[in-house]
Amino acid sequence: MISKNEIKFIKSLKLKKYRNRERQFLVEGEKNVDEVLASKLQTLKLFCTGKVAGKYLVRGAVEISEAQMAQISTLKTNETCLAVASMPAPGTQHVSGDTHTFVLDRIADPGNLGTIIRTLDWFGYHQLVCSEDCADFFHPKTISASMGSFTRLQPMYHDLDKFLAGESRPVYGLALGGEPLESVRRFEPSIFVMGSESHGIRDSVLARLTHQLRISGHGQAESLNVAIATAIVAFHLRSCQL
Amino acid sequence: MISKNEIKFIKSLKLKKYRNRERQFLVEGEKNVDEVLASKLQTLKLFCTGKVAGKYLVRGAVEISEAQMAQISTLKTNETCLAVASMPAPGTQHVSGDTHTFVLDRIADPGNLGTIIRTLDWFGYHQLVCSEDCADFFHPKTISASMGSFTRLQPMYHDLDKFLAGESRPVYGLALGGEPLESVRRFEPSIFVMGSESHGIRDSVLARLTHQLRISGHGQAESLNVAIATAIVAFHLRSCQL
Repeated sequence: MISKNEIKFIKSLKLKKYRNRERQFLVEGEKNVDEVLASKLQTLKLFCTGKVAGKYLVRGAVEISEAQMAQISTLKTNETCLAVASMPAPGTQHVSGDTHTFVLDRIADPGNLGTIIRTLDWFGYHQLVCSEDCADFFHPKTISASMGSFTRLQPMYHDLDKFLAGESRPVYGLALGGEPLESVRRFEPSIFVMGSESHGIRDSVLARLTHQLRISGHGQAESLNVAIATAIVAFHLRSCQL
Repeated sequence: MISKNEIKFIKSLKLKKYRNRERQFLVEGEKNVDEVLASKLQTLKLFCTGKVAGKYLVRGAVEISEAQMAQISTLKTNETCLAVASMPAPGTQHVSGDTHTFVLDRIADPGNLGTIIRTLDWFGYHQLVCSEDCADFFHPKTISASMGSFTRLQPMYHDLDKFLAGESRPVYGLALGGEPLESVRRFEPSIFVMGSESHGIRDSVLARLTHQLRISGHGQAESLNVAIATAIVAFHLRSCQL
């Protein structure tokens, strides 16, 4: 049973404005719901369809019809489950200078952000700073694309100029004309800035890079997807640490 | 001016069945349309909105309203242009044994396929073989995600068991328990098999691998996106060739 008011409330969480006001967000599909249930995050509501009732009713889920699930879910097809979770308290995270930190400048696509979160989690890099105009971490598409990694990695949103002004670590960024990434094989704890696909790294941030790197292209493609570029940097850093 | 029949025809090309029957496909948005116009592929129809009429009318485009563009386009927002292009004649491609060939086993998501095409084009690898049950190269989402690279790289669809049976090159594949990718730094011309996210590499293909590799994880994420994994392999191969 789900009330009209609940449906309305859950649908409102598709918008950042209401997510921020309520400090709640949507988690959809089995993989992500299983991860949120297994995490320290608080799950406030849980809905499932008959298809997976055996698995989720014992976890306190409310069974709803597939038509109702389609109504509240943002996924094209969601035949299983949806949770409403509570955002962690703000200010519980901080940047540590003794490891690598990834910085995203104006990554607009929530799917790309989610894939980056998943990939950094894979490689064990858990420090992620986003410019204030990046996509929202709690956007349903970010959460979905993170494949559960949203429970282990939460970006901090900062004014990048101010953030970088306070940093003493080397600041690497991908830029045309930089040194080939694969030619650098020693990195002390550093910052790696990834720019948006359409605009690259903004000028004021570019001015704060201490080193420019590039991923060498060997064909005619104009650019790499930003999640792909981030993954290649993370893989390279890991293989240099071995 | 666009007729009702034309609208109907263009909409039919969203489906593989009609694309294959007509041997035509959709190309949407400025980047992809510019690439198809600059390529050897034949552009049969070209539509643009008033917004970009100055650029495309001289190339023979027909101007239509934004509402009409929204009607024929598969993109969420397309305020610019759409082309109908002719598929290249079948059988114009073949696998060459003197370079690396990438093989995709059951990659279902056309967006992932498009990103893989874009990434392989970036790294200059132009040999791509897909299992017959992979996503369609001419799916509008594949074409869009390829960011123009569909003009330079067209996968060949094969029965992978038969294809691999006829190969004498080493066959690498990503598999749990393989050797760490970064530890192998010499590759003769080889085949690299990437399995689907949900099912990995099918057993009959797994049995044909001569070497198993893995991308080492250092966190708790369960898997990497297949386009990300392909990109990391391509980057590593390139950096080993330097």
